[in-house]
Amino acid sequence: MEDEPHLAVYRDLLARYVAQDSEATEESERLSELFHERGVSPDDLVAMHLDALKQIAVNPDRVTLRSIDFLMKMMSGYGHDYREHQELKSRQK
Amino acid sequence: MEDEPHLAVYRDLLARYVAQDSEATEESERLSELFHERGVSPDDLVAMHLDALKQIAVNPDRVTLRSIDFLMKMMSGYGHDYREHQELKSRQK
Repeated sequence: MEDEPHLAVYRDLLARYVAQDSEATEESERLSELFHERGVSPDDLVAMHLDALKQIAVNPDRVTLRSIDFLMKMMSGYGHDYREHQELKSRQK
Repeated sequence: MEDEPHLAVYRDLLARYVAQDSEATEESERLSELFHERGVSPDDLVAMHLDALKQIAVNPDRVTLRSIDFLMKMMSGYGHDYREHQELKSRQK
């Protein structure tokens, strides 16, 4: 997983989760940790989700896709906090 | 807005955004700040989004709804970081 682009890894795991793959939940915890370590912010994660969903959903409804756009906007303030937190933590080391 | 439950406010603004209300984007910035001040974490926000979407989408597709479940799981690690950050900030005051 290490060298694959984040989006591809996320998309493949999301597809498995949607298809009820029983191991996908457990793997999502590890992927969440990995993204964390690599500095993927909460708003980056929502943006990645939207991209991945567009790739795997056969016929996503317009309302739902647009709603995720809204979630991305709502999350952008959290991205700022997240980066500030990474800085505070690295200063504490 | 102050006294309304978060979900109702979020749902109404989301519905307006989805319906292309031109003022909804600007208002989403203020709501994002308000949620921030009130300690709504990133994973809380995704959970709220899923609840709101179920209320406003007439016929959401199953894949998309389940995908947001996955996003919620992915975001849960960020919730921990967020709460830690709030603590660090309050200690700095």
